[in-house]
Amino acid sequence: MPRVTEAYLAERREHILSSAATCFAREGFHRTSMRDVIAEAGLSPGAVYHYFRGKHDIIAAISLDAVTAVGGAVRASVGRGQSLPELVAGLPTAIEALDRADDRTRLAVQAWGEALRDPALGAALREGVDGVLDALRERVDLAREAGEVSADVDPHAVARVALGIVQGFILQRAWDPEVTAADYGRGASAVVGGLLAP
Amino acid sequence: MPRVTEAYLAERREHILSSAATCFAREGFHRTSMRDVIAEAGLSPGAVYHYFRGKHDIIAAISLDAVTAVGGAVRASVGRGQSLPELVAGLPTAIEALDRADDRTRLAVQAWGEALRDPALGAALREGVDGVLDALRERVDLAREAGEVSADVDPHAVARVALGIVQGFILQRAWDPEVTAADYGRGASAVVGGLLAP
Repeated sequence: MPRVTEAYLAERREHILSSAATCFAREGFHRTSMRDVIAEAGLSPGAVYHYFRGKHDIIAAISLDAVTAVGGAVRASVGRGQSLPELVAGLPTAIEALDRADDRTRLAVQAWGEALRDPALGAALREGVDGVLDALRERVDLAREAGEVSADVDPHAVARVALGIVQGFILQRAWDPEVTAADYGRGASAVVGGLLAP
Repeated sequence: MPRVTEAYLAERREHILSSAATCFAREGFHRTSMRDVIAEAGLSPGAVYHYFRGKHDIIAAISLDAVTAVGGAVRASVGRGQSLPELVAGLPTAIEALDRADDRTRLAVQAWGEALRDPALGAALREGVDGVLDALRERVDLAREAGEVSADVDPHAVARVALGIVQGFILQRAWDPEVTAADYGRGASAVVGGLLAP
């Protein structure tokens, strides 16, 4: 029997998510059953249920992966000493990196709608989003303390708008895969970088 | 028989939308039938079907109302001679004005997910959104010609990010009704008004 490493577990989880994403993209979330996901993954039911209790858990994981990617990008940007405009302009790239052949950004948008109907998914997604908002707010706080931005700036409100810019990218890319992080990021650079200010 | 005025037709259409929104909020879009909408509206089936062929038409109308509101706000801002940052910062207010007791922004988010599965709804929504993008792009073009913004600015990309800021507001407000246009608009003012630029 092979030794079960963390990498093996992560790879298997990823394989199940990818199989589920294929099913959701083909049949829609509501018409997909766990039986479909298990067949697509080519695993035993037990192997799949070991990772996810049901399809709501799977769509929660897919949408939380997007949130986690944004949170990671915020921390990486702080680590690299980027300015606040550079940080915001770079966030769409973290989302684009998630998009494999299985179109995860489309599923993230479907998860937003589900989250409004499903309290458990809503709570999980909100907790993740609150973590990203906190990281963004802390970054704005730092910038205020360093005199990098005006003391008048409301860190909570700025964090929400920075997050909104990424959410808008997810939605627009889901509708039109030709919207790229490079294009959108160029727009974000102009908007956040002060090029529009009179 | 009363004379059928345009105001009467608009009011009746609005009553049907509001009744449908109440049903969707209570039971979810998928579990609501046209029969439920007709009962909630207290009208004859013929009266309801005169306006909408089915519930997909209704959710399309609700989501297109949001798009129309944003497009109207862009034109009004141009009419008032506002700067580009003032325009973007004011757009969330147009969305907030749509939110009545029946929580239309929540339905707009559900419509985004549906639009990815339903080609007719997707096409209608995309056409509306493209109109808003065009209006925003034209405004950026004007600002470039007037030297109000840098010539380096890409009007298409800036229009997408301005739209993304509004879409992010719709999503965040759907999740948390305490996110107000005043708060979010304050953040947008800082972001778009150059207060974050080093």
